[in-house]
Amino acid sequence: MNMVDIILKKREGGKLSEDEIVFFIEGYTDGSIPDYQAAALLMTIYFKGMDKEETYQLTKAMKNSGDVIDLSSIKGIKVDKHSTGGVGDKTTLVVGPLAAACGVPVAKMSGRGLGFTGGTVDKMESIPGFKTSIEAKAFIELVNRVGLSVIGQTAHIAPADKKIYALRDVTATVDNLSLITSSIMSKKLASGSDAIVLDVKCGNGAFMENIEDATRLGQLMVDIGTSDGKKTIAVITDMSQPLGKAVGNSNEVIEAIETLKGNGPEDITELSMTLAGIMIFAGEKASSMEEGHSMAKEVMDNGKALEKLRLFIEGQGGDSKVMDDYSLFPQYKEKIDVLATADGFVWSIGARSIGLASQHSGAGRATKEDQIDLSAGIYISKKVGDKVTKGDVLVSVYGMDRDKIEKGAKEAEKAFTITQEKPERTKLIIKILE
Amino acid sequence: MNMVDIILKKREGGKLSEDEIVFFIEGYTDGSIPDYQAAALLMTIYFKGMDKEETYQLTKAMKNSGDVIDLSSIKGIKVDKHSTGGVGDKTTLVVGPLAAACGVPVAKMSGRGLGFTGGTVDKMESIPGFKTSIEAKAFIELVNRVGLSVIGQTAHIAPADKKIYALRDVTATVDNLSLITSSIMSKKLASGSDAIVLDVKCGNGAFMENIEDATRLGQLMVDIGTSDGKKTIAVITDMSQPLGKAVGNSNEVIEAIETLKGNGPEDITELSMTLAGIMIFAGEKASSMEEGHSMAKEVMDNGKALEKLRLFIEGQGGDSKVMDDYSLFPQYKEKIDVLATADGFVWSIGARSIGLASQHSGAGRATKEDQIDLSAGIYISKKVGDKVTKGDVLVSVYGMDRDKIEKGAKEAEKAFTITQEKPERTKLIIKILE
Repeated sequence: MNMVDIILKKREGGKLSEDEIVFFIEGYTDGSIPDYQAAALLMTIYFKGMDKEETYQLTKAMKNSGDVIDLSSIKGIKVDKHSTGGVGDKTTLVVGPLAAACGVPVAKMSGRGLGFTGGTVDKMESIPGFKTSIEAKAFIELVNRVGLSVIGQTAHIAPADKKIYALRDVTATVDNLSLITSSIMSKKLASGSDAIVLDVKCGNGAFMENIEDATRLGQLMVDIGTSDGKKTIAVITDMSQPLGKAVGNSNEVIEAIETLKGNGPEDITELSMTLAGIMIFAGEKASSMEEGHSMAKEVMDNGKALEKLRLFIEGQGGDSKVMDDYSLFPQYKEKIDVLATADGFVWSIGARSIGLASQHSGAGRATKEDQIDLSAGIYISKKVGDKVTKGDVLVSVYGMDRDKIEKGAKEAEKAFTITQEKPERTKLIIKILE
Repeated sequence: MNMVDIILKKREGGKLSEDEIVFFIEGYTDGSIPDYQAAALLMTIYFKGMDKEETYQLTKAMKNSGDVIDLSSIKGIKVDKHSTGGVGDKTTLVVGPLAAACGVPVAKMSGRGLGFTGGTVDKMESIPGFKTSIEAKAFIELVNRVGLSVIGQTAHIAPADKKIYALRDVTATVDNLSLITSSIMSKKLASGSDAIVLDVKCGNGAFMENIEDATRLGQLMVDIGTSDGKKTIAVITDMSQPLGKAVGNSNEVIEAIETLKGNGPEDITELSMTLAGIMIFAGEKASSMEEGHSMAKEVMDNGKALEKLRLFIEGQGGDSKVMDDYSLFPQYKEKIDVLATADGFVWSIGARSIGLASQHSGAGRATKEDQIDLSAGIYISKKVGDKVTKGDVLVSVYGMDRDKIEKGAKEAEKAFTITQEKPERTKLIIKILE
């Protein structure tokens, strides 16, 4: 077997066998297949596509390129939740406690933020004392005891994906359904949960700009997860504006706490309830998604979910007093309010611009090595559909460094379109695929 | 400007500008653009194609990646001849003297053989004393004095082509018209001749298996040469069997000498006359290709071309006595005759198998570092259409090493198909494009 023949086969429209896909992934991971042959194959896949079976074999080979986590010592059906990347998406911090409070164990590995999207690990670390690099034993013990733990992703999960992802980025082969699916699902399948709930974002701030593409991606991920024996459900959700009002790190944790207290923005609350309901159903603690939704509402209303969050924070070394006293979070020094320059309605808020503004303010990273400012971020006062009067604060940008927040404010300003006409309300939850 | 945007533009079906093509070629040649991005772009070009203008810009950028030879100190219109690669093709050694004898200067750079095709430089070096690595000054002096010189290609001709050609070979991006054209023509345009005659092979032993593909390649090369201000003419010729009867090195030189003496195989004689006629026309020593053909016949018949060959051999340090005494060439020690196992007619002779048999016998190289056996090679006794009787010698394989020629004989045997029906005669010269 050799790479030229494999590239040629795909180039001529052939279907790659499991052996050929394993040969590629193992060889590329161990370095015996060079970048240029991998690049040629990726571009060929871009043009000729992969069917469902090939995509599954690719995903499986990538999963098997590194450690596959064994969570069997955790009782119950472990459910993972994954979002395809949004701006202001702090739902993990809300749905984790909701699901755990309903008896569904959540043992989650999360990443750090890069570019204009944030990462749960960074957000959690804005809680004084909170550690995301805990031992596997402590992780499992915490999930068994509290029902929830979140740790940083280790280097040994799907190393093939790391190499391929980096290569796709520099060879214009990012936007292919099979490659996106294998990248996301190889990590999810290696992470050891029994069921997976996927939040597939759709809209101007997301990878998939329209519902058709998002549906194709969601359905393929569901099929791949199912092929691997995991219950997999995907929710297509609207991402045509940032989720909630806070974008950054500590401010997003505060918004998540407020949501669990029942005071969250409407969109975050609705999305969290839906996702938690599906997780509770996938974890077999409810007989339907609707029942799961009611259970999630109950543990939110009776404070049990908030209590789970407290135990989770304490379990990972964090100071849970932040939940009652937000002044214990890192505090920003500088703030700029961006004001409306005319009367009207907010027609749209570019999620990508808000994400970039947050990154510029110091809350995000341009490169992996950058240090982030945990106090920095964005607060959106006016969301899509809101009426504004000239001089109203649309959005605030804050952080430690004046130059950075000035740059952030310039970007945030670009995000807003104000019109005389009031936009129609869009649906947040577009569809559910299983 | 950056490579990802260039790949993306081509991927989306865009037309690359001169600046973008130059950026790619310069960056790839100097190493600032890595192999993997070049591989991704080549595969994108394979799928999306390049138009004539892009192909010309690519060729020009590759030509300008290294030295562009200045032959202006050679009087007259210098004419180059290039073949797209055949088995048993010794026409350079015939048409060079024919054209030179008619007053057309031929200043040729040639390559060594690799794989199943031979190279003129190796063939010439089978003449005792002959040197192909002579100084530029001596090369030019010899062309001015005799009208003909052949040297090995220096490292500085189109280095971009060397890198791209090596990359195409390992990324399944060899068979694309624009990439083939730019590879051949960048070297031709850098080699300094004023006019170019291309022999585009067509058939089972050639790159292009059918007339349509060969015509498309020939026409594109003519267009690119013309765009660069060189008179360019392409001849599509049949390569469904090896050219002539001898395949190897010294045996091919002997066959070329015999052809100039008027005793050559019919196909070599016809092809050489046609190519030489076109060269004489392109070099403006005849007013039509037909007149050029008659002039070539005249200098063959009156011995003037043979005399040019003698002066050329002596000019490059070779022992011209070989022309009258073939025993002065390297002599083989071992020989195997492959016999016909049935009566009938030779229906076909696989040129690729004969080329491989010659390589196996020791006459060719598997890798650039291999030493070749100048005495080794193949002699085809029966050509397509010949009647054979069981026990007749079809082909002989000879050389210094018994093991090698046994391997060669096995391969040579495979080349022959004997049938009861006599095949129709195929045309050698298929068409001329200008």
